[in-house]
Amino acid sequence: MAIGPDTKGVYTIAPTPFEADGKIDWESLDSMVDFYERCGVDGMTILGIMGEAPKLDAGESLEIVKRIVARTRLPVIVGVSAPGFAAMRSLARASIEVGAQGVMIAPPPALRTDDQIVTYFRNASEAVGEDVPFVLQDYPLTLSVVMTPVVIRRIVTDNPACFMLKHEDWPGLEKISALRGFQKDGSLRPLSILTGNGGLFLDFEMERGADGAMTGYSFPDMLVDVVKLSVAGERDKAHDLFDAHLPYLRYEQQPGVGLAVRKYVMMKRGAIASDAQRKPGSALSAAARQEVDYLLMRLESRVRKQAPR
Amino acid sequence: MAIGPDTKGVYTIAPTPFEADGKIDWESLDSMVDFYERCGVDGMTILGIMGEAPKLDAGESLEIVKRIVARTRLPVIVGVSAPGFAAMRSLARASIEVGAQGVMIAPPPALRTDDQIVTYFRNASEAVGEDVPFVLQDYPLTLSVVMTPVVIRRIVTDNPACFMLKHEDWPGLEKISALRGFQKDGSLRPLSILTGNGGLFLDFEMERGADGAMTGYSFPDMLVDVVKLSVAGERDKAHDLFDAHLPYLRYEQQPGVGLAVRKYVMMKRGAIASDAQRKPGSALSAAARQEVDYLLMRLESRVRKQAPR
Amino acid sequence: MAIGPDTKGVYTIAPTPFEADGKIDWESLDSMVDFYERCGVDGMTILGIMGEAPKLDAGESLEIVKRIVARTRLPVIVGVSAPGFAAMRSLARASIEVGAQGVMIAPPPALRTDDQIVTYFRNASEAVGEDVPFVLQDYPLTLSVVMTPVVIRRIVTDNPACFMLKHEDWPGLEKISALRGFQKDGSLRPLSILTGNGGLFLDFEMERGADGAMTGYSFPDMLVDVVKLSVAGERDKAHDLFDAHLPYLRYEQQPGVGLAVRKYVMMKRGAIASDAQRKPGSALSAAARQEVDYLLMRLESRVRKQAPR
Amino acid sequence: MAIGPDTKGVYTIAPTPFEADGKIDWESLDSMVDFYERCGVDGMTILGIMGEAPKLDAGESLEIVKRIVARTRLPVIVGVSAPGFAAMRSLARASIEVGAQGVMIAPPPALRTDDQIVTYFRNASEAVGEDVPFVLQDYPLTLSVVMTPVVIRRIVTDNPACFMLKHEDWPGLEKISALRGFQKDGSLRPLSILTGNGGLFLDFEMERGADGAMTGYSFPDMLVDVVKLSVAGERDKAHDLFDAHLPYLRYEQQPGVGLAVRKYVMMKRGAIASDAQRKPGSALSAAARQEVDYLLMRLESRVRKQAPR
Repeated sequence: MAIGPDTKGVYTIAPTPFEADGKIDWESLDSMVDFYERCGVDGMTILGIMGEAPKLDAGESLEIVKRIVARTRLPVIVGVSAPGFAAMRSLARASIEVGAQGVMIAPPPALRTDDQIVTYFRNASEAVGEDVPFVLQDYPLTLSVVMTPVVIRRIVTDNPACFMLKHEDWPGLEKISALRGFQKDGSLRPLSILTGNGGLFLDFEMERGADGAMTGYSFPDMLVDVVKLSVAGERDKAHDLFDAHLPYLRYEQQPGVGLAVRKYVMMKRGAIASDAQRKPGSALSAAARQEVDYLLMRLESRVRKQAPR
Repeated sequence: MAIGPDTKGVYTIAPTPFEADGKIDWESLDSMVDFYERCGVDGMTILGIMGEAPKLDAGESLEIVKRIVARTRLPVIVGVSAPGFAAMRSLARASIEVGAQGVMIAPPPALRTDDQIVTYFRNASEAVGEDVPFVLQDYPLTLSVVMTPVVIRRIVTDNPACFMLKHEDWPGLEKISALRGFQKDGSLRPLSILTGNGGLFLDFEMERGADGAMTGYSFPDMLVDVVKLSVAGERDKAHDLFDAHLPYLRYEQQPGVGLAVRKYVMMKRGAIASDAQRKPGSALSAAARQEVDYLLMRLESRVRKQAPR
Repeated sequence: MAIGPDTKGVYTIAPTPFEADGKIDWESLDSMVDFYERCGVDGMTILGIMGEAPKLDAGESLEIVKRIVARTRLPVIVGVSAPGFAAMRSLARASIEVGAQGVMIAPPPALRTDDQIVTYFRNASEAVGEDVPFVLQDYPLTLSVVMTPVVIRRIVTDNPACFMLKHEDWPGLEKISALRGFQKDGSLRPLSILTGNGGLFLDFEMERGADGAMTGYSFPDMLVDVVKLSVAGERDKAHDLFDAHLPYLRYEQQPGVGLAVRKYVMMKRGAIASDAQRKPGSALSAAARQEVDYLLMRLESRVRKQAPR
Repeated sequence: MAIGPDTKGVYTIAPTPFEADGKIDWESLDSMVDFYERCGVDGMTILGIMGEAPKLDAGESLEIVKRIVARTRLPVIVGVSAPGFAAMRSLARASIEVGAQGVMIAPPPALRTDDQIVTYFRNASEAVGEDVPFVLQDYPLTLSVVMTPVVIRRIVTDNPACFMLKHEDWPGLEKISALRGFQKDGSLRPLSILTGNGGLFLDFEMERGADGAMTGYSFPDMLVDVVKLSVAGERDKAHDLFDAHLPYLRYEQQPGVGLAVRKYVMMKRGAIASDAQRKPGSALSAAARQEVDYLLMRLESRVRKQAPR
């Protein structure tokens, strides 16, 4: 189960379960891993932005990596984005040592010019070690760093260790087409593209050439099925399933409060014991919880009508 | 048909139709107005961000106001946001003079502190004249100015001419609840709240207390129906109709390329003759047009199944 | 007195004089022009950021251009930066028609990638007309657009009408060296470089290869003398004069309040009748005025000791 | 030597010395501390932005705190700004345990509204512990968070542990006056204000009511003398000394390259063995080094003329 430029499928972005007082909930880490395996995902990406990674200290981060790697036989990718390369390197090396298969790196928000971005990833790969496979995260909405397809190609070309793009530009469909076009004209080597943004455009991202999804939607089983249907050429069925989820998916995909929604639903689905976040966190009002419940009810009813698929 | 704090319904955000060479398409302005009237909207907001207003010079802007006001008996609100108060005042006074009923003002992106924002709107209202009713636009995603509910209350309290909030924070449901809560506790005077963001949360925004929508979705007839169903307490039917549109609506609501999608569909629906934008504009690739066509086909089929409502 | 890639010397950035109630002070426009001519400047740049240009409406802007062009025989460059190309074109064409010799264009703050910046200036030059000479303004501190030397070279190469760089990156000395290096290796055609930032680094900018200054420091006579001394190879004398001004110059170069300082001193020097700004403007506290007075007293005393130069 | 709201004098912002290969230079840490003591500073602030703190990993940071605290009897303040509260708490608690006297906290760049800023510091103080004295860093130029005097008052009032403001807004003179005004009218409790920005306005900041400087200018002895002269009411002498340094000080105060300048001069003064920075770092070109050398020569000559003071 090695990861590489031909990796396909669904890598879930895992949240970090906490107890009400902010302590890490180690048992929920285990049950969450089991939940993801039951959902059929192909791998896990942990300690990303939606994993509340910046709220952990260095020791906690590594403990979480160890726990998850010990629990699963799926490939684990560790978010190691940090304000500096020393902290990035420390977590990356230690994670690989305990069994993680790769790391994910996002650019710091201050980067502006093409050259600044390209140089940053060169330095980052050198810092974590050229032997450490890394995922390039392209997420302008939150990180405010804008990478053109040409810049992505430069990064991939410069860094043999870059095997995957976590694509979450918005809008982003043309970017997938541009990168796949580069590959057709021979100017870009093979590269796995998994898409994010909560899955909001997964239906068309697959059709544009994505290899799957890397996002934390609380129904990873749906992501798995949509990816499979799409790969199988069952376009209408893929869209039918996707559309059934969209009213709720859109609700979970909100910035800020979205993580509260996601954890609430994962709690309802039995994946984690509590939807608590570490401070500073968002929380669901009573009204929001009722809205989510209503959306889930409608989702269930609509999916039931579609079955048997 | 005067506008005021009790205004309800759907105010469409009108695009500006251009010819392929960038000239204003005056005939399409007329046909677009007729289209909106057929769709049953309650008013129009013109020269907003999605109306490509910054691409017009001062003379063109006023000509467009005149043309639209002459064509319709619906209330017209004019976007007058400008880098300075002199230009804002010129367009506002001239628009009111030719028959517009109010103006809309967005904050300039450099504003940061609460006091800066409050002071800006005080100066803006003074500049356009205290007799000119204005809509406060709250659109952090694009404008990067963040207003808390308390800041909005301060602006409304300071400025008798402020009669409406164009609500497009994202996420924004709790903001509506907070403002309606202020009104319940007597700390905020009556205020119309119409919601934006392409309608992406209109279903729940209505339930939280919005008075309707002010957005440019290319099916304003759907917005009208959802608002009516929601007001009538037909919750499930409102959601059924909304959900049928959501797969396409999400596609139109993308930043940047969204306007190209919207104009393409308005062209297909006969509202305007061309989907051209003035430079710098976005354009649809062949792949994107096929995706839109596919979404419209599915939309039509799904709405047909729901009818008769 | 045609402007071009070999333009040298001091182009002052002119403020716009207002009366206390915000009206344009036309007589002060005349006396200000006379003041600049007495100071020995080589040209004037009007309607820039420090000229409060965004606070003027379209009609006022053109009237100011006319008045100044009629008053002086020096070359006049007009700031035409605008949110859109139609307004930019209107002011540019009209300004050239009444006798301005060129225009200055700054990039809008939303630009991020190298390609976005390059494309913007291609479109801008096309919009104002390829026959209109333009100055490229590079001012990241205020505009938050970062241009590498390579991007500047692309813009200059793409646009025959670009004859000058208004250099005000900070820090910026290495950028001048890089551009002059491009010219030495033949990859960049001749280009005038005038420097800004209130003159804070003029002493070394000249030594790095700048052709002079384009900034609004209220002692343009000092800028003129420092440029001359530097060109004449009188290094120590240039620094002596510059250093005598630096304590006050630093005070005038503050963002925001700096314009209030500048107008106050220009009023004291008889160039304009009032230091009023149009809203929203900054103002000097009593403490600040006393600080400026103290700095001017020390400046005068120190310059007197240096004379005769 | 306890720190508190009545702390006065000069707290130097210490850089972190590295060897050419990026390793921490432990011996230079010692010699640097000795240098600062010889210069007569009243305390040290370590692991700030200019201390390249984000480039260190958690273990390194604590080792540096230990080494410096062991070497000096001056009070040491530790920068603990971090993306999350867990890492902030870890470093803060450990630093106090080994003998640091307080910590410094800067706001994360994403904060916008007044309430967000106030809430952040409430949470931060709770996270590090209410018994840990902290310095509030107000540095909008780099951090892009804008705090009004009223917001600062709210933070100080909310958090008994906040004993000092590191003032480096720019411009900032009126902010000092406003805060001192709050204290006169009884609405703000005692608060030490030390100023930053490389000392660029120290002369007037002292006159406005600052208690001293907290900045890393490579001539801390000058800062010490200017503060003393200012406190002694020797206005002209304070300015004479300050002005003698200003041409070079301005050069060191440049963003980005400024740290390279500072380390180069500290190396020349024997404080540290190398001017190396950890990646990603800035470096001085040959031209820049010559400019610095020239400025230092002029500085020395001018200060010699002023002596004996």
